Amino acid sequence: MGMIGGGRGAFIGGVHRMAAALDGQIELVCGAFSSNPEKSKLSGQDFYLDPSRIYGSYEEMILAEKELSEDQRMDFVSIVTPNHMHYAPAKMAIEHGFHVVCDKPLCYDMEQAYDLQKVVQESGLIFALTHNYTGYPMVKEAKAMISDGKLGKIRKVVVEYPQGWLSTFLEGSDQKQAAWRTDPKRSGIAGAMGDIGTHAENLVEYITGLKITELCADISTLVEGRALDDDGNVLLRFDNGARGILYASQISAGEENNLKIRVYGEYGGLEWLQMKPNTLMVRWADKPAQMMRAGVGEQAASTQAHMRIPAGHPEGYLEAFANIYRNVAKCIQARIEGIEVDPIYTDFPTVEDGVRGMNFIYKVIESGKSDQKWITL
Amino acid sequence: MGMIGGGRGAFIGGVHRMAAALDGQIELVCGAFSSNPEKSKLSGQDFYLDPSRIYGSYEEMILAEKELSEDQRMDFVSIVTPNHMHYAPAKMAIEHGFHVVCDKPLCYDMEQAYDLQKVVQESGLIFALTHNYTGYPMVKEAKAMISDGKLGKIRKVVVEYPQGWLSTFLEGSDQKQAAWRTDPKRSGIAGAMGDIGTHAENLVEYITGLKITELCADISTLVEGRALDDDGNVLLRFDNGARGILYASQISAGEENNLKIRVYGEYGGLEWLQMKPNTLMVRWADKPAQMMRAGVGEQAASTQAHMRIPAGHPEGYLEAFANIYRNVAKCIQARIEGIEVDPIYTDFPTVEDGVRGMNFIYKVIESGKSDQKWITL
Amino acid sequence: MGMIGGGRGAFIGGVHRMAAALDGQIELVCGAFSSNPEKSKLSGQDFYLDPSRIYGSYEEMILAEKELSEDQRMDFVSIVTPNHMHYAPAKMAIEHGFHVVCDKPLCYDMEQAYDLQKVVQESGLIFALTHNYTGYPMVKEAKAMISDGKLGKIRKVVVEYPQGWLSTFLEGSDQKQAAWRTDPKRSGIAGAMGDIGTHAENLVEYITGLKITELCADISTLVEGRALDDDGNVLLRFDNGARGILYASQISAGEENNLKIRVYGEYGGLEWLQMKPNTLMVRWADKPAQMMRAGVGEQAASTQAHMRIPAGHPEGYLEAFANIYRNVAKCIQARIEGIEVDPIYTDFPTVEDGVRGMNFIYKVIESGKSDQKWITL
Amino acid sequence: MGMIGGGRGAFIGGVHRMAAALDGQIELVCGAFSSNPEKSKLSGQDFYLDPSRIYGSYEEMILAEKELSEDQRMDFVSIVTPNHMHYAPAKMAIEHGFHVVCDKPLCYDMEQAYDLQKVVQESGLIFALTHNYTGYPMVKEAKAMISDGKLGKIRKVVVEYPQGWLSTFLEGSDQKQAAWRTDPKRSGIAGAMGDIGTHAENLVEYITGLKITELCADISTLVEGRALDDDGNVLLRFDNGARGILYASQISAGEENNLKIRVYGEYGGLEWLQMKPNTLMVRWADKPAQMMRAGVGEQAASTQAHMRIPAGHPEGYLEAFANIYRNVAKCIQARIEGIEVDPIYTDFPTVEDGVRGMNFIYKVIESGKSDQKWITL
Repeated sequence: MGMIGGGRGAFIGGVHRMAAALDGQIELVCGAFSSNPEKSKLSGQDFYLDPSRIYGSYEEMILAEKELSEDQRMDFVSIVTPNHMHYAPAKMAIEHGFHVVCDKPLCYDMEQAYDLQKVVQESGLIFALTHNYTGYPMVKEAKAMISDGKLGKIRKVVVEYPQGWLSTFLEGSDQKQAAWRTDPKRSGIAGAMGDIGTHAENLVEYITGLKITELCADISTLVEGRALDDDGNVLLRFDNGARGILYASQISAGEENNLKIRVYGEYGGLEWLQMKPNTLMVRWADKPAQMMRAGVGEQAASTQAHMRIPAGHPEGYLEAFANIYRNVAKCIQARIEGIEVDPIYTDFPTVEDGVRGMNFIYKVIESGKSDQKWITL
Repeated sequence: MGMIGGGRGAFIGGVHRMAAALDGQIELVCGAFSSNPEKSKLSGQDFYLDPSRIYGSYEEMILAEKELSEDQRMDFVSIVTPNHMHYAPAKMAIEHGFHVVCDKPLCYDMEQAYDLQKVVQESGLIFALTHNYTGYPMVKEAKAMISDGKLGKIRKVVVEYPQGWLSTFLEGSDQKQAAWRTDPKRSGIAGAMGDIGTHAENLVEYITGLKITELCADISTLVEGRALDDDGNVLLRFDNGARGILYASQISAGEENNLKIRVYGEYGGLEWLQMKPNTLMVRWADKPAQMMRAGVGEQAASTQAHMRIPAGHPEGYLEAFANIYRNVAKCIQARIEGIEVDPIYTDFPTVEDGVRGMNFIYKVIESGKSDQKWITL
Repeated sequence: MGMIGGGRGAFIGGVHRMAAALDGQIELVCGAFSSNPEKSKLSGQDFYLDPSRIYGSYEEMILAEKELSEDQRMDFVSIVTPNHMHYAPAKMAIEHGFHVVCDKPLCYDMEQAYDLQKVVQESGLIFALTHNYTGYPMVKEAKAMISDGKLGKIRKVVVEYPQGWLSTFLEGSDQKQAAWRTDPKRSGIAGAMGDIGTHAENLVEYITGLKITELCADISTLVEGRALDDDGNVLLRFDNGARGILYASQISAGEENNLKIRVYGEYGGLEWLQMKPNTLMVRWADKPAQMMRAGVGEQAASTQAHMRIPAGHPEGYLEAFANIYRNVAKCIQARIEGIEVDPIYTDFPTVEDGVRGMNFIYKVIESGKSDQKWITL
Repeated sequence: MGMIGGGRGAFIGGVHRMAAALDGQIELVCGAFSSNPEKSKLSGQDFYLDPSRIYGSYEEMILAEKELSEDQRMDFVSIVTPNHMHYAPAKMAIEHGFHVVCDKPLCYDMEQAYDLQKVVQESGLIFALTHNYTGYPMVKEAKAMISDGKLGKIRKVVVEYPQGWLSTFLEGSDQKQAAWRTDPKRSGIAGAMGDIGTHAENLVEYITGLKITELCADISTLVEGRALDDDGNVLLRFDNGARGILYASQISAGEENNLKIRVYGEYGGLEWLQMKPNTLMVRWADKPAQMMRAGVGEQAASTQAHMRIPAGHPEGYLEAFANIYRNVAKCIQARIEGIEVDPIYTDFPTVEDGVRGMNFIYKVIESGKSDQKWITL
């Protein structure tokens, strides 16, 4: 794996490195960790890299690695830069034959999104988008329960993602994360809706198997001086007639990272909280609720395949993130060996999910500015 | 106290009787428990009433009690009939000089609501509406914290009220509660929004002290054949600029009676769940969250005044309901004795809250049918 | 009902009055609320009693009420005095033909206990001891599950009762509850073990249907200057070979009233917390855990018979306490009418439970002072 | 790092490998993964090792690695074999100058324990014992709170470790974990008390800073045919006069891995659950309880140093385990570089903790067989 971005002082780069390292299947062999070559060099040393493979730019890295023999060069790139810096390196990597793992959202705007989709589709290469919350075992279990019809027809969905870290004008300080995530030049047209609203959108469609068809949004900037939205409340309608609510907020003071989803069908409802990820509550209309715990009792094959340790030994955010990397590694390995891969391992978000997420961002921002009640997605 | 409605087979009548009895301040002395005189008689016997004070109709009761001496006759009536049967007995009771405790929503339609408001205001009598959830001690504490400014300016509110008991076409069976609550002739223009949506609306305005100014609703009937709404999702805007979500549902299969409210201000957020009523979670932007428990540590005078037993001895729904009756009793007693009553005890929902609730019902149903995004409340 | 004790300033008297009043089946008609006749008088006025039936002593009350006609006089007495004042009024009431409801523990010492048992047994009258925690619906459900064999043979039990209110030398202030409960002259030989340890002992035997046969205790006084124990840890062995732990503490600073029981059998374990009384967690060895909620799904007849309102409307401490009074009222009513009473309603703690509790107190205190490992109960 | 044990089919070996890999500071360079050389070879291939460094025995590995140049050879060994196979490889590794990370308990018997302690002390090398639960951030916070005196003098401690996985005679099947852990020849004199009781003992002394001075145990084998204990209840006394309870069980059917500790001091109590590891509840005698969450508000430097990602992104068992490896790596790195290491990173369990744990096992088993009430530790 070669990494683009994620040098000293970054947040998500370290997450990607830990996620990639956890299972001993992926080795970080090179990187262009910063647009500042000196900083890239220092970061690469932190990771014990061969100095010759610490690059000053992603272009340099892609071209140099391409020159190495197949068994020497990196198998894929991991892109962990801010949103406006996803498109160019992703496209170049794909065009030079490298698989890609890319942080979310897919890119900066719709034009980039559609172009990237086209490039990836034509290449036939692997492109994984790290909507990491779909990597949790009990999210797999929830998805399996619903697709097996255990809840009956889905009628109502509530997905919420409150955070509180932008309750103050943090971008006015030198906090690097706040600075770029609230900056339209780097983040794109949306703030909270792009940063975490898309996670909620991706999760709800992943778990339910439904598609959002219409939405009606109230998008706000509640902290004075902020350039992008920091709170959004959205009514949803789904392709099967189900109704729903999605909200994302970064000014819900006191909230940590409280992604939560509830899905109600004819026979019962389920509830999953990211902050208690190993539990899936299932409440039935006419029998006792079940507190399903990862690893307890019979569970879906996909659930089991995304756990590493027995029940009661909590697995968390990094493990779920690592599941995406592990699956990508399995798929790349299978291609190298020319074998089929179990469909359990092809289950990670792709460029199509990325385009859908970008489209959601655009529609939700459009709705926030519109007097029209329903916007078609 | 004289009761109107609440005979054998009813639900909420028994709740009112227990709530009234709990503190030993109120005695049930008479009743017209059913429009069927025979059934009224049998019900009255269940409550050990003097046979001469078990009446065949509310008109009979009001007229007969009026004839009794002041120290003999009932002090107030408690109206626990279905919605369409609130207005007439309430008006007649008021017009004959009796205070009234009335179940919610206030009445059947807006016309009745405005007329009842006028009659009550002119009479100067006490009219209490049993939005019982405001009677919980930790709801009082939440209200006090916000009005004391501890959370700073309120920015975001989420109130939700999912139930699952109408997940099937229960009104097709002989379930009495389902029958009238889904019947436009008895319930009014709304189903879930009238039955429980108004509780949510009342609670959110009570706790925050804010007023809803605009709303945008998606109102649905998700169980086939049902005559009224059974699910509604509503975007809210408040008079101070805060944004919010309100939803109420009776088809959220597996949910019991899961009223929950979250309020976020500049400095922190609070969360209260009706099903864990003695706890108030308060999360702060930059210090550890507090799990406030009824009776632990220093709390508002209004909180303490609505508790009966020490911390750790759970008080529930009936106790909260009883707080409304206890306060009404205190106010009536004070009038009888010609003394001032501590403002803590005048804190119960009134006819004005009832009119506001009816207005909410009308606007939310109107919004549900409209293509206009925002409706002014 | 006539009450002995429970005048102004008392704690448990008010609880008994509310519990008795809740269901509208029991009327407080007389009382000797204090050994101080003036205070008794004032207290009786608080409860709107006929002045002629507010007595200056329990002896006076029992004799005077005995003179009234059967349909006039009290049906039973409720004894809510400190421990050392249970025996004499209970015995006199029984000897004059009145049923008794008595607060726990049964009395002051073993001699009184055995004598009271004898008197009650000979009289054939009803004697209920308010080990109120057995009145909770989900405690009934737990008992039913175990007696139905759903957990298989019981192997392990953990019952704990931590409180924190005596973490300081509160008896040094004028706190009335602390004063008598830590005073050997009024409380008996035990402090925490008598006050709450007996509740734990009663609950564990009630739910499991097992008997404690041996115990080994470490009994401590951890607050300096205190005259009785404030913390006790006890190893238990049961008659079927199961092992267990019981602990009770009043110096567990920060704890409210955290009675909790866990019972493990061959197939699964259950867990009930007094502070979340409407939930019973059942964890199975090889299938998902069930979060059983009062009123959800099929439940034991005894569970249902001890609920008043539908699922999701929390019932608490007073309701559980009221279940004992309601059952006593049903039994007395049945005797008056000369009919059989459903065994569901005879399910309340009796003088035998009281003797067993006193015995437990004596043995646990003996063990605390002994070098011998196991003491037979 | 070179690994001893942990080949295909093992459990804890994989945990150690993931824990070591997570932070990118430690590389697995060699191993003797099984006493079966063929199996060792296959396992080593799974981890992409250089075939020349996959050894057929630990003796071969230690000798061969010793021959490599300092910058080539492994820096330390990780021992992940069953208990009876800890001592010999640990001693040999130390004697050949390799640091050691060893799974718990320390070894098979007391004789080995004392000898190993002597060898390690004389060598001056690093010896880390993976009592991994002390690696959790909120365990660090709990320890810091207590040592800072925030709870006042500690009076009462309850530590419990229920599991249910040995509720049946699992060792009668071919379950490898059950087989050796219930076998006196491989596990030592204790079953549950050695496997998890020692974790509880280690955790309680670590967090409180107190030493257990006396204990009184009831040790049982509740599943028929089992050769070692599967349940134990223990009364504890500490060196400062505090009282406590420790219990460990592997027959608590339905329990996963429910390690929990509560510590009560003069001013408040804290509670930590391994299955909700990012939360530390602190309840105060006279103010609202605090729900402390990893990363929220000001926390101890040691807490922060053992977190990798922001609040709300759950870290779990592997991350806590990885903290021990990360600290060991920091210490080894510091020795290589000849620099001082921050005391935060020397905070991991050592051979002394291991000897103390072995002593606890011996005393608790002795107490279980004794009629003497208190045994001195």
